Amino acid sequence: MVNEKMYELGSEPSAIRELFAYGLARKAEIGEDKVFDFSLGNPSIPAPAAVKEAIIELLDEPPVALHGYTPAQGTPGVRTAIADSINRRFGMNAAAANIYMTAGAAASLDISINAVANEGDEFIVIAPYFPEYRIWIEAAGCTCIEVMAREIDFQLDLAAIEAAVTPKTKGIIINSPNNPVGSVYSEENLRGLADVLCSKREELGSVIYVICDEPYREIVYEGVEVPYIPAIYDNTIVCYSYSKSLSLPGERIGYLYVPERMPDWQRVYAAICGAGRALGFVCAPSLFQGVIEKCVDAPTDVAAYAENRALLCRGLSELGYEYVEPRGAFYLWVKALEPDEQAFADRAKAHELLLVPSTSFGCSGYVRIGYCVDKATIEQSIPAFAALMAEYR
Amino acid sequence: MVNEKMYELGSEPSAIRELFAYGLARKAEIGEDKVFDFSLGNPSIPAPAAVKEAIIELLDEPPVALHGYTPAQGTPGVRTAIADSINRRFGMNAAAANIYMTAGAAASLDISINAVANEGDEFIVIAPYFPEYRIWIEAAGCTCIEVMAREIDFQLDLAAIEAAVTPKTKGIIINSPNNPVGSVYSEENLRGLADVLCSKREELGSVIYVICDEPYREIVYEGVEVPYIPAIYDNTIVCYSYSKSLSLPGERIGYLYVPERMPDWQRVYAAICGAGRALGFVCAPSLFQGVIEKCVDAPTDVAAYAENRALLCRGLSELGYEYVEPRGAFYLWVKALEPDEQAFADRAKAHELLLVPSTSFGCSGYVRIGYCVDKATIEQSIPAFAALMAEYR
Repeated sequence: MVNEKMYELGSEPSAIRELFAYGLARKAEIGEDKVFDFSLGNPSIPAPAAVKEAIIELLDEPPVALHGYTPAQGTPGVRTAIADSINRRFGMNAAAANIYMTAGAAASLDISINAVANEGDEFIVIAPYFPEYRIWIEAAGCTCIEVMAREIDFQLDLAAIEAAVTPKTKGIIINSPNNPVGSVYSEENLRGLADVLCSKREELGSVIYVICDEPYREIVYEGVEVPYIPAIYDNTIVCYSYSKSLSLPGERIGYLYVPERMPDWQRVYAAICGAGRALGFVCAPSLFQGVIEKCVDAPTDVAAYAENRALLCRGLSELGYEYVEPRGAFYLWVKALEPDEQAFADRAKAHELLLVPSTSFGCSGYVRIGYCVDKATIEQSIPAFAALMAEYR
Repeated sequence: MVNEKMYELGSEPSAIRELFAYGLARKAEIGEDKVFDFSLGNPSIPAPAAVKEAIIELLDEPPVALHGYTPAQGTPGVRTAIADSINRRFGMNAAAANIYMTAGAAASLDISINAVANEGDEFIVIAPYFPEYRIWIEAAGCTCIEVMAREIDFQLDLAAIEAAVTPKTKGIIINSPNNPVGSVYSEENLRGLADVLCSKREELGSVIYVICDEPYREIVYEGVEVPYIPAIYDNTIVCYSYSKSLSLPGERIGYLYVPERMPDWQRVYAAICGAGRALGFVCAPSLFQGVIEKCVDAPTDVAAYAENRALLCRGLSELGYEYVEPRGAFYLWVKALEPDEQAFADRAKAHELLLVPSTSFGCSGYVRIGYCVDKATIEQSIPAFAALMAEYR
């Protein structure tokens, strides 16, 4: 009697969740420190002290306003603070009118897709990719078109993207720093993308939106700069979340930025308001709108991730594993030691190493290691990685 | 280039928002105390002290867990606390597995509709009704069928509901205590509804779900009991929100309850998980899940609303206005003094009385007065209501 598609979505097994659940059970069986669970992308660095201080300050404000409905778009205060921060950091000319507060990146992405899409449209995703993209695209009645990243460096494969564009292409989702690969697209690569999309626009007469999913923008290493896509391509919608940068994934707070440079941005912004309404979002959580207003420029602490990354890369590279040099996010994308990544992950599991096979992200031959874990987990896992490698030698 | 339907939804004028905006401007012009703004349904009673205490206690917990992702369904702790409370209060036999935490009633309703609906299905709403119902129903590709409440007492018109059921009817949205009328459906009335739906099930062979929208359950007066629909009709999905009962509308926290008595409740629950995922909800805000776990039985303070209600009813009734005796919520549903409720609301506006015409709720001939305001607003508005009445005498 229910909607079968929703039933399937709600009951389908998830490799990541199952691995995590297995890890919890296994830890209970043989001890916490004997299981090396790299399955999740949950920040292990606590929220900065500024967040707690902001909440305590806000609790002195009158509760009717503090916990009350805000406008659907968010309070003028937080939207202005975010616009100012964008302008300072990226040389844009944003105003509060370009910002729409959301319940995190998932909400931002789903709202963006529904705002611009008509049934039957196509959205391009770059594989490997976050699997929920497909779900939101299909729920909007659209088709998810996978285009592989260049396997040599996991940058955008411009020729493949160009070949995938059709008159039905409405958008392309770009996630940089990337989950699951940890790559950051270069400015040159993104300028190439803009050229492709602009020439396709001329050819086909229709705009292709870049929907950029940037929860990992602040999680970068060794001074890597993440190019700001709206400064490169006008028809970009930015989906930002504080889940990773302020370690607030459960609080569901982020924003959409519809840049003032986008021709007709007011129409897109209005459609975003409509899609938020149709999807059942009323306003982003009000207390955390206040927190973000106060913490908009709080620095992101990546020291622990950087240390984990260095330890893991050194350890695996000494053992002879091949992986993509991670420039951002907190994932290592490692080549499986046999063609069947599920078989490889299963053998890793026998060594208590919980790695997510790349099938979960729409491609084969790899595993994802989430290094947002305790340093001890990394250190103690190296002998297990050594034993796993020894099996294949 | 955007989705036209979303553009319209995002840019269409809202009588309520426009009235509220007018009120703000008018107050700036002639003084706060000269404008009687009854346009909104924003709680005027502050959140109970227990909420602030709960937040402060929670802030001592480790932030990684406190602000981290919870399972999509919510933490086991809050779901168990809610199930226990339902069992204590309503004699049900709920467990955590029957509860799904949501970002408030809007999310609950939209998720429920999408979980059970297939394109082309019909949902019945009882007019006058909260206008977003239609938006969520139509966004799910379904048809919104309006059935008027009985005008004599604004209870459910069972004959009209029966006549409106077709083989495509998937559900009926029941909102009691009711916005905008303030009515509470009696147990007898609801048992009659259950009979209609059960006999239609026999006749048509398909389940009709009651989706009960209960944010106002705790806002009742003079000891009114609000019958618990899942105890009367098995195929009921409860959409609860703490927006009104704990005055937390901006925090977006509530739950769905899929009762254990519903045949096949596990399938419905799984479809709810799927719909939540497809709509872009990840988890309900985590800090407030913790707050609800601690405050699940915090009493709702309705004293100020009760006082406002008494003042307003006495004042208007002495002046000769006709209205529906409000049993719950914080709205008074008043008969317009001329057939055209918009013309009546416009004349009220000339007396600085901001009343929402009933067209916003899918029926004619009435206005809604939201009495979730300062007591002074009520007191000072009575002479304006007197002057308005005098115009019509």
